[in-house]
Amino acid sequence: MQAWKDYQSQNKDRFLNELLELLRIPSVSAKSEHKADMIRCAEAFKQRLLEAGADTVEIYPTDGHPIVYGEKIIDPSKPTVLVYGHYDVQPAEPLELWTNGPFDPTIVDGKIFARGSCDDKGQVYMHVKALETLVQTNSLSGNIKFCIEGEEEVGSPNLGKFVAQHKELLKADCVLISDSAMISLDTPSIDIGVRGLSYIEVEVTGPNRDLHSGVYGGAVANPITILAKMIASLHDENNHITIPGFYDDVVVATPDERALMAKAPFNENDYAKDLGVQALWGEKGYTTNERTGIRPTLELNGIWGGYTGEGAKTVLPSKAYAKISARLVPNQISKKMTDLLINHFAKIAPPYVTVKASLHHGGEPYMTPIDSVAYQAASKAMETTFGKAPIPVRGGGSIPICALFEKELGIKIVFMGFGLDSDNLHSPNEKYDIANYYKGIETIPYFHHFFAEMNVSI
Amino acid sequence: MQAWKDYQSQNKDRFLNELLELLRIPSVSAKSEHKADMIRCAEAFKQRLLEAGADTVEIYPTDGHPIVYGEKIIDPSKPTVLVYGHYDVQPAEPLELWTNGPFDPTIVDGKIFARGSCDDKGQVYMHVKALETLVQTNSLSGNIKFCIEGEEEVGSPNLGKFVAQHKELLKADCVLISDSAMISLDTPSIDIGVRGLSYIEVEVTGPNRDLHSGVYGGAVANPITILAKMIASLHDENNHITIPGFYDDVVVATPDERALMAKAPFNENDYAKDLGVQALWGEKGYTTNERTGIRPTLELNGIWGGYTGEGAKTVLPSKAYAKISARLVPNQISKKMTDLLINHFAKIAPPYVTVKASLHHGGEPYMTPIDSVAYQAASKAMETTFGKAPIPVRGGGSIPICALFEKELGIKIVFMGFGLDSDNLHSPNEKYDIANYYKGIETIPYFHHFFAEMNVSI
Repeated sequence: MQAWKDYQSQNKDRFLNELLELLRIPSVSAKSEHKADMIRCAEAFKQRLLEAGADTVEIYPTDGHPIVYGEKIIDPSKPTVLVYGHYDVQPAEPLELWTNGPFDPTIVDGKIFARGSCDDKGQVYMHVKALETLVQTNSLSGNIKFCIEGEEEVGSPNLGKFVAQHKELLKADCVLISDSAMISLDTPSIDIGVRGLSYIEVEVTGPNRDLHSGVYGGAVANPITILAKMIASLHDENNHITIPGFYDDVVVATPDERALMAKAPFNENDYAKDLGVQALWGEKGYTTNERTGIRPTLELNGIWGGYTGEGAKTVLPSKAYAKISARLVPNQISKKMTDLLINHFAKIAPPYVTVKASLHHGGEPYMTPIDSVAYQAASKAMETTFGKAPIPVRGGGSIPICALFEKELGIKIVFMGFGLDSDNLHSPNEKYDIANYYKGIETIPYFHHFFAEMNVSI
Repeated sequence: MQAWKDYQSQNKDRFLNELLELLRIPSVSAKSEHKADMIRCAEAFKQRLLEAGADTVEIYPTDGHPIVYGEKIIDPSKPTVLVYGHYDVQPAEPLELWTNGPFDPTIVDGKIFARGSCDDKGQVYMHVKALETLVQTNSLSGNIKFCIEGEEEVGSPNLGKFVAQHKELLKADCVLISDSAMISLDTPSIDIGVRGLSYIEVEVTGPNRDLHSGVYGGAVANPITILAKMIASLHDENNHITIPGFYDDVVVATPDERALMAKAPFNENDYAKDLGVQALWGEKGYTTNERTGIRPTLELNGIWGGYTGEGAKTVLPSKAYAKISARLVPNQISKKMTDLLINHFAKIAPPYVTVKASLHHGGEPYMTPIDSVAYQAASKAMETTFGKAPIPVRGGGSIPICALFEKELGIKIVFMGFGLDSDNLHSPNEKYDIANYYKGIETIPYFHHFFAEMNVSI
């Protein structure tokens, strides 16, 4: 559509500057010190949705951070797309590894460096600008609703209740999410699955106080050593996870599925080189893409205990801690897997320490059928703007609320992500290519167009 | 001696207040931010030595923190005791576990709570007050020299050079150190050995940047997991250390020695109860006192990596770190053991990570012969003031400079410690009983008296 192209071309600098403004708000949901920033960020999104042409926008308080809901209804009888995204971001630490401030967005080589640039402010804001494009060019062919939450990075603890209580408000024909990656601008792809999550924290207590490691060392269990032994026991020599029952509910991929996955362009040497490692690691019997796509994993996200400052301290600490998360695949159930993890730590705790394992958050794995109208509309939209059809791939990350939307609203979800795996999500120097940002704004109106057309024709 | 007793009794409140003043200086040698405090603390000790009656006191700069040297020479032909101690302290972290500020000394139930109260400001200051007592009562029977350094807690990196360059200045007949514990005020004891130390830091690098644990988890080695596996491999199921060659140079204790050690009053249940553990831990085949006294050990002093803040972050970190130290016994050599540790980590590093292990500091194990004049004088002094002869025991801690003094000055060292194992050395709420402080001040003049007498009579 030439009108879209013209409008976007005339407003591209403003589209970019508006995103930079949003990235300046440190909306870190995990840290209570950012509570006010969260509210500021929700207010900013509300304002932008109204400016983009939404009829109504409301901020719904929750027990945690608020949810921004907005809508543009042209005709209730027409197909409706519910856009889901999140305005919260991961903590920015370790701060010393950022080249520029995480909340001081900086453009280098056509890339926007900032926490949240890709995950997910940059991607959710593409949808706001797509709405604006459709409104300003009078070319809306269906209704668009927005549900932008502030707790995705902490496991969406309050979204479930909100969705269950607002089924009519959120009623739609599909959920559209841009919170994932594609292979590249040259090789578009669509995630057809996301992994689930079980995230726990483990606390190991040895002696009731920090001790002098010379006076007591060798006579009382060191909680760091014990924690290390427990962690070490979680993977065997083939990097299979050893927790009894861990793989019980995993749907084994068929040879056909695995053959299809193997067709996605992937070079193991380039992958290792990009990560700066001499050798890759993973579960024996599976390729790298299978390890991150169709297999569950167990990762250490953090560990600490004893003296971690400058210099040396001869302490035998009282406590050691770890943050550990499992990525889940169909048909693993987050609650069941979390219980399995927590019980496993209780079981393997030796008598000379106390082990406390507790839930951080979880989410269910999810698969999108490629024969759904939503997937087909997304595929056709990307084919239109990229010049080639996207490849369906299995993503490694988690969007905990997918299973929830399907259950509560009875609709399918499609993941049209415009990020790249190399965008340093959750890491220092997170970035989002401006070209990808614009490509998303260009593509999304086509999705709405095709989705309305296909739904009407069915 | 009644004169000593009277003098100390008349001045006891001042003796205590002066110590509290010294404890207010945060002389943390490991942290560069305390450089000025270190100088302030050295100046304070200089001033106090002069006030106590030392003829001359000098502050010797080093490449690190300065050394305070002072002396009271009554007659160069008389026996000379070199008192060694340190004015630096361990870092006070974790601060939140202190009931009161670590540098805001607080007296509760007759105990002084403060970092350095026992280790070692409180114990070294007993010697300053003992000097004052001898000077004020005109009862010095020999010469006393003081060498109070500021780097004991970081491995005394500059003391060796100082001692080698000032052999004449430091010339003495024995070294007297109060930087250790005794069993109790009811059961006096003297350490006849201290363990050596090899302290290293290990850095494990996986990918070249922090990664999203969903996108990359399962496909690239997690440095925390690898570090945990390496740590777990260091002890076998009997808690023997598995590093090849680790025990090669250990002098095996004779059955007689072990029988003597077993006579020291010790109750395993009380020990476990005091530490708040359900079960003790340690090398199979040895008692608790043997594990901390005659056996080398390997302890984790700190570990960190990934996200350690509030909430959850789904990161697969680039790096993980550990601080690890071995306690050494005769005839293990620190340098050799450090090399062994560093090389071991290089050897067990798997190909998908980079492991860098480096030295923090080290020190040699040391044994005092109980038939030495110095030991006999200490034993007789304690018998005089405690009413019973002290038991010789093997201490678990390390005083890295002992072997150095013996080598450079050709003299024996005696450890007359007045602390308790329960003094929370290197831990939050470090304390020193006022009764022990006064008992030290009471006992030390007798040491000087008996040492001079015995040396003359030899």
